[in-house]
Amino acid sequence: MEAFTSTEKYLAALEARAALPTGFRVSTVSLTFRPVERDVAQPLAMNLSLILLDRETPEFAAVYTANRFPGVPVLLGRERLARDGIRGVLVNNRIANVCAPSGRGDAERLLAALGRETGSPADAFLPASTGIIGWRLPVAEMEAALPGLVRGARGGSFAPVAHAIMTTDRFPKLRSRTVGFGRIVGIAKGAGMIEPRLGTMLCFLCTDVGVGREELRTALAWAADRTLNRISIDGDQSTSDMAMLLSSRAKGPADPEAFREALRQVLAELAEDIVRNGEGTSHVIRVTVSGAPDDEAAAGAGKAVVNSPLVKTAVCGNDPNVGRLASAIGDWAGGAAPWFDAASVTVRLGGVEVLAGGAFRLDTAKEERLSAYLRGAAFDPAARGFPAHDRCVDIEVSLNGGPGTAVVLGSDLSAEYVRENADYRS
Amino acid sequence: MEAFTSTEKYLAALEARAALPTGFRVSTVSLTFRPVERDVAQPLAMNLSLILLDRETPEFAAVYTANRFPGVPVLLGRERLARDGIRGVLVNNRIANVCAPSGRGDAERLLAALGRETGSPADAFLPASTGIIGWRLPVAEMEAALPGLVRGARGGSFAPVAHAIMTTDRFPKLRSRTVGFGRIVGIAKGAGMIEPRLGTMLCFLCTDVGVGREELRTALAWAADRTLNRISIDGDQSTSDMAMLLSSRAKGPADPEAFREALRQVLAELAEDIVRNGEGTSHVIRVTVSGAPDDEAAAGAGKAVVNSPLVKTAVCGNDPNVGRLASAIGDWAGGAAPWFDAASVTVRLGGVEVLAGGAFRLDTAKEERLSAYLRGAAFDPAARGFPAHDRCVDIEVSLNGGPGTAVVLGSDLSAEYVRENADYRS
Repeated sequence: MEAFTSTEKYLAALEARAALPTGFRVSTVSLTFRPVERDVAQPLAMNLSLILLDRETPEFAAVYTANRFPGVPVLLGRERLARDGIRGVLVNNRIANVCAPSGRGDAERLLAALGRETGSPADAFLPASTGIIGWRLPVAEMEAALPGLVRGARGGSFAPVAHAIMTTDRFPKLRSRTVGFGRIVGIAKGAGMIEPRLGTMLCFLCTDVGVGREELRTALAWAADRTLNRISIDGDQSTSDMAMLLSSRAKGPADPEAFREALRQVLAELAEDIVRNGEGTSHVIRVTVSGAPDDEAAAGAGKAVVNSPLVKTAVCGNDPNVGRLASAIGDWAGGAAPWFDAASVTVRLGGVEVLAGGAFRLDTAKEERLSAYLRGAAFDPAARGFPAHDRCVDIEVSLNGGPGTAVVLGSDLSAEYVRENADYRS
Repeated sequence: MEAFTSTEKYLAALEARAALPTGFRVSTVSLTFRPVERDVAQPLAMNLSLILLDRETPEFAAVYTANRFPGVPVLLGRERLARDGIRGVLVNNRIANVCAPSGRGDAERLLAALGRETGSPADAFLPASTGIIGWRLPVAEMEAALPGLVRGARGGSFAPVAHAIMTTDRFPKLRSRTVGFGRIVGIAKGAGMIEPRLGTMLCFLCTDVGVGREELRTALAWAADRTLNRISIDGDQSTSDMAMLLSSRAKGPADPEAFREALRQVLAELAEDIVRNGEGTSHVIRVTVSGAPDDEAAAGAGKAVVNSPLVKTAVCGNDPNVGRLASAIGDWAGGAAPWFDAASVTVRLGGVEVLAGGAFRLDTAKEERLSAYLRGAAFDPAARGFPAHDRCVDIEVSLNGGPGTAVVLGSDLSAEYVRENADYRS
């Protein structure tokens, strides 16, 4: 278990794992602009970030949101997956470029300018944006910032980009693993749509391990499905969620199984960081489901638990409310699991059996111990900055219906979440 | 539009529609008990209510929760649907009789005693319970209360039962319609699982219109599917949700279409009462979806909107957040609607077009008007007693994909909801 006593110590731990793989440079700049959509007293700030490969690579992969109001970066990025190679990624926060007039033209113009600035084709970069939906990008201001952005690109640490892509994130998120002769380093921001008027989970992974394009894409889809797709803050998948994996091939190949597993570990840690960072989150809930017919069914049961507002509010209140757990599982099974047998289900909270054989296993003393366990996993949902600890509330659900398993992470639901998402008018 | 300025005026309006159909008597008593599961300083109170037909009827219908941890009343009630006739319903609040040891034996013993007391068979009554999950019913205290309960049964008003079945409901819910030579009168409590540690939607409908058993059951399933199944407070379906419809046949038959429509109207009004009564609710959201391939798909889109925590919190904050509406619809379509075309979708809020042709239709002045509209539909989520008004936040979604339509009702998500569901330890 990690516990941090200051933002400085958290950032030092993050910096220690932040070294960029060989063949990558990064850069960030800040700019200000006035949106055309709204009279604002002060200009708004935007961070623009560049992930630049020393040379074009054919080894790149991306997974995108299934949301059917996708942002322009999702639409353009999907098309550019067919290119022979790409040179890097341009990322902005503040405006998501979704449902805005001329959004596609704006993005293409910017990326073409970046191509000229780097001596690359007009379509050699992938776009990524996060922020307000419906507004236009400030293309003139962004284009003016590109020369400085390209000039500033450096190897060394990936951490500046982890900072620059934040919107209302509490802390930057960066994780890494060594594999073969190289490394995988990933950064992320957001968590689905957790934020007031801003939304988007963005995840960028760089590696210098050489992995063929097809295997790279298979590995990313496989690992994302087991990590990023098994977290839930509020059940919403934003218009702009994406995860990208770029390889510079600078350090040669590695064992494919080892690469996949290292990638899964990086993504699992980033996924947990995202949940812990969720606005208004005061507990991270980890549901481990076993005994489902397959892994997908197990994930469905786990998501039903972490998406139940009643389970989420009970955990927030440090209430070991077994009735709400049983009801959430039973509600899911009523729709999705004809094979379900209530009498065969066992539920544990913090390792303690609380439901078995169709009946509660509770007494006053056990409830008090469980409430103390929940209090011990809590943190202040209004706190900013570093995560105070990495404890989770562990819920284990044994369904006794087959070999399928899944681990699903979610957040509790606090009054702070509502305040941050409701008491807000931009 | 109805607006009430006092609890007295609300109750007077409710009483004016409360006359029991011919052939029914009702009764309620209060009792106190000490639960075996918990040391309590004061005994707990429970209301016990009886709906008694003058004679057994074969014309009865019920729909039950699909939750796979169902309560004993659900399990017993489903079995008794096969009986030739029933004499009435025994309802208690405070304890739901779900996942409790010996729960089935307890309920059977009580209902058999009620049978003796009324000169009916041991299995002539349907049970209904709401309240804490996992605890045992206080059978001795409940059995001792039965003689007084039966003696007190009277025709006249259904309102005492609407009061007695409440748990943390803000106000009693009772609606009626005349049809043919008779009436349909219904009462309800709760809303899915909206309440701290208590859950359950219970709905009891009495009519003196003679309707054959098969048609009665078809009509109830049809009407519930279009009303009670199209509301959502928090997406949870409790372990004990049920709706029952009993006919005394005292006033002869009516046109079947007219009966169905009257039943649908009673249930639609009760469903709206339930949402308006939701704990922590400060706006009722009414989503009208058109242009889906079928009604079921339309209902799916509507539920995606009213279940999105981000839409719910935005409405709570009087924020006309079109981005969250678009994202919720797009997220639903990504999973459920391959036929979906974002460019064909039109969204209106309070009758005002806010999204069309894949782009926002907003400016600062329009947003301010919409925010004022949302403020006008708000009420105090912490207020107790009567509903201050019956206004809704109207969201219309035109999908342009077919003839399917649906109206879905939901609540917003306020900090008060979280307080009532989290800051609670029984």
